[in-house]
Amino acid sequence: MAELTGKSSIGFQSSTQSESTIFGVNPATGETLQPGYAAVSEKELNRAVELAEDAFEIFGKSSGIERAALLRKIADNIELISDKLAALAPQETGLPEPRIKMETGRTCAQLRLFASVAEEGSWVGARIDHADPDRAPVPKPDIRSMKRPLGPVAVFCASNFPLAFSVAGGDTASALAAGCPVIVKAHQSHPGTAELVGTALTNAVKDSGLPEGVFSLLYGPGRETGQALVRHPKIKAAGFTGSRAGGQSLMKIAADRPEPIPFYAEMSSINPVFILSGAMAERGEALAAGLYGSMTMGVGQFCTNPGLTIVDNNSNLEPFLSKITELVDSSPSATMLNSGIGSAYDSGARSLSENVAVEALARGEAGEGKCQAEAVLFRTTSDSFLHDASLGTELFGPSTLIVTHDSKDKMLALAKSLEGQLTATVHGTEADLEANRDLLEILETKAGRVLINGFPTGVEVCHSMVHGGPFPATSDGRSTSVGTNAIHRFSRDVCYQSFPDSLLPRELQEANPLNIRRMIDGVIV
Amino acid sequence: MAELTGKSSIGFQSSTQSESTIFGVNPATGETLQPGYAAVSEKELNRAVELAEDAFEIFGKSSGIERAALLRKIADNIELISDKLAALAPQETGLPEPRIKMETGRTCAQLRLFASVAEEGSWVGARIDHADPDRAPVPKPDIRSMKRPLGPVAVFCASNFPLAFSVAGGDTASALAAGCPVIVKAHQSHPGTAELVGTALTNAVKDSGLPEGVFSLLYGPGRETGQALVRHPKIKAAGFTGSRAGGQSLMKIAADRPEPIPFYAEMSSINPVFILSGAMAERGEALAAGLYGSMTMGVGQFCTNPGLTIVDNNSNLEPFLSKITELVDSSPSATMLNSGIGSAYDSGARSLSENVAVEALARGEAGEGKCQAEAVLFRTTSDSFLHDASLGTELFGPSTLIVTHDSKDKMLALAKSLEGQLTATVHGTEADLEANRDLLEILETKAGRVLINGFPTGVEVCHSMVHGGPFPATSDGRSTSVGTNAIHRFSRDVCYQSFPDSLLPRELQEANPLNIRRMIDGVIV
Repeated sequence: MAELTGKSSIGFQSSTQSESTIFGVNPATGETLQPGYAAVSEKELNRAVELAEDAFEIFGKSSGIERAALLRKIADNIELISDKLAALAPQETGLPEPRIKMETGRTCAQLRLFASVAEEGSWVGARIDHADPDRAPVPKPDIRSMKRPLGPVAVFCASNFPLAFSVAGGDTASALAAGCPVIVKAHQSHPGTAELVGTALTNAVKDSGLPEGVFSLLYGPGRETGQALVRHPKIKAAGFTGSRAGGQSLMKIAADRPEPIPFYAEMSSINPVFILSGAMAERGEALAAGLYGSMTMGVGQFCTNPGLTIVDNNSNLEPFLSKITELVDSSPSATMLNSGIGSAYDSGARSLSENVAVEALARGEAGEGKCQAEAVLFRTTSDSFLHDASLGTELFGPSTLIVTHDSKDKMLALAKSLEGQLTATVHGTEADLEANRDLLEILETKAGRVLINGFPTGVEVCHSMVHGGPFPATSDGRSTSVGTNAIHRFSRDVCYQSFPDSLLPRELQEANPLNIRRMIDGVIV
Repeated sequence: MAELTGKSSIGFQSSTQSESTIFGVNPATGETLQPGYAAVSEKELNRAVELAEDAFEIFGKSSGIERAALLRKIADNIELISDKLAALAPQETGLPEPRIKMETGRTCAQLRLFASVAEEGSWVGARIDHADPDRAPVPKPDIRSMKRPLGPVAVFCASNFPLAFSVAGGDTASALAAGCPVIVKAHQSHPGTAELVGTALTNAVKDSGLPEGVFSLLYGPGRETGQALVRHPKIKAAGFTGSRAGGQSLMKIAADRPEPIPFYAEMSSINPVFILSGAMAERGEALAAGLYGSMTMGVGQFCTNPGLTIVDNNSNLEPFLSKITELVDSSPSATMLNSGIGSAYDSGARSLSENVAVEALARGEAGEGKCQAEAVLFRTTSDSFLHDASLGTELFGPSTLIVTHDSKDKMLALAKSLEGQLTATVHGTEADLEANRDLLEILETKAGRVLINGFPTGVEVCHSMVHGGPFPATSDGRSTSVGTNAIHRFSRDVCYQSFPDSLLPRELQEANPLNIRRMIDGVIV
């Protein structure tokens, strides 16, 4: 890849740092990939943030049409390099080429979806309350409000989605759509992929005639570069997808700043799947096949991976258990994203295996070579689960823990014991579901998304999606990182009192020149 | 007041604690008021939270119509005791009876406004994306989402609004409208007023046939009772209006919990007023009169009090300065809310007086007796202001600091130097405003509400109001504590995937039985 430079981009400039310390590694072979990437200097990081602040003065006032054009240009530019991405990203991540192609398509679709939201313009929630100079005892002033962008946003790339949750992923798309400049911290696990996408993005900013500070891409160690970004007084919000430990340390930094900022971390979820007895009796084998597909999809490296499966010991579990055991036993080994994730999975699986309350029901092929994950199927009882909090921690990889219970009370206790989740799933017949509305009500308080008779992997990018959930699934359960509502994370309402029409943002001008949906004197027009 | 019991209410039960430690004090006379109030025990506090959690199972699922009925019943009950409130609250707060009557009216209007929002129902932002089983490569599932309440909410009463920001104030109204049970921590500065309103609220809960845990009212010291509430694992959000020190210590507790929760504090704002030269030339005297009225309203004890007035030395300041000096010099002394606020104002004003960079231009009547505030008018230069951060801290009381500058650059530097504010105001002629769009753009990034040619005191309760702003004005600049958008603080989106229609909340059922506004497949219907 001759075109890769190994440099951070600070607006339209390349970093002048030259000591390469970050190298992509092919997880399947252990081969170190070229070029190496130099960590950005502190001065360059500060320069990127200052450029972003300068750019915000222009970009924060840009029209939805201008932002839509930028987002579409980014998508177009990414499509132009999709073959290069499909060649490079698998080397860096171990993910197969078809997955990279699908993820590239999703990333571009996501950019275009946010373009349509920005262009349509009603997302700002414009509200107008007209003056009433005759009101007694005091006249009523003219008051108008709408969402405005927060300012420069830091975005952290995720290892497990080198495109859709990385340089031009959901966080970047939603922040740009809202009018916020973005500074991306690349993930060391796919530095070349990040550079390719970063160049596509920088070129789109250039071609759109926007100021260079709208986008920068920084390489560096998470601890120094990432923390320095979140700590920087001119950064006004940040988005992160990654581990619970990493997310919580950044949450703390964001909260402890002299000026605390919104920090959106998606961190940890075990995505419980409850199988009710009617469904188990009706389709145990099919449920086993579905569960197996979901738990091994992407080598189990999805934040929505079903890590916990709750079943009723009073049902006939045999067809389900023998099918899932058979599937896991014959599961081929597969390459994980990087050695850190590979060894964390190995050691987590080992801990579970060594837990006397847990039985390993099945193990897939161990595999030879680097970063090979073997699928593992564990089983424990609800009593053990309720008494050992370690059984509820996320094991990131192709595994699920089957928890058996003897009564509905135990099942509900188990549901109540759960921490916040991205998803919660219930499989049931019509009668099962009707008889377990209380379970659904508990799960609704625990998760951002509740599914019936499906599997949690596969997050639809649409208007109604909520990819979020109470802590520790995310740092801020009021938000979503997927779907068009994500744009609201990077904005706040600003109120304009008694402004002359010509000084109001166009969204709030009396004649409604942008023809957007507004609430006028309490009525949506 | 024979009917006052001096007790906390834990749902429908009275506290059994009997050692009175909290007494209202008439700030004008220093007289201790009866009855005394006993601090709630730890066990009772826990019981209140558990009742709230139990109540949430019912109340969280109640319909908007039921919540509207509750809110209207509360307003009706408060109106029935408005004479008692008008008799008692002035004794506890030093606020005059007409102000208490006006605030009672505002409190009831606010409850009814939230009732109308809950009843209409569209606030939940329902979104429906229909399934497409034929989509390739994977079928599209049916996905729906809407806002759901967070759970039990802790509300802290404010000293300066014994009704509108206290037991049945904005935080309580918006939390109940969203479907969250509320536990109120009474303010020790007006315990009897809190009990009267608390009884009105409890009776409304009883009469509505709702579970007792929907509302509790707790007395106790801020440090123990308030912090224990925010720390309690079953509390899911909190609202606070008060000092920066108090707000920041609770923010830290909320962020450091094993499960961090949304914490909405409104804390500190100096509400800058910029007077541009054209306006100063045109109406210096009128501006002085308006500023004087705003800075002394409620003895300066409003969070929107204009504590900072920025004027251009190159304008003819004489008419403005001589008028405001004359007004402040002849300003009668007035009673502050309590001795703590009175002595904080005295010592803050003394610090400013002793600052060599600051000149005291005028002082009102000093007053005899307890808690008497003298209005003070200070002046300094923009250079001094920019070099001494202490000049930018809030002085809660009837005072403003006039800052003179010599150039537009200095004015903009001053605007840029400001911390987050609830409001920012600009006075200008049409030509002034046109020539200072850059000032307006800076202020928009600093404040929740920007006003032109008005004064910041007087917060309209309406759909478009934003009573919020970047830190330290509030802990969370994305929200408002006044106006109907406040309901969004106590809710989060939940997504329902592939639910049978009968298991969906009615807001999301296909036939739209509640007839609310929804986004269906991307289009608002």
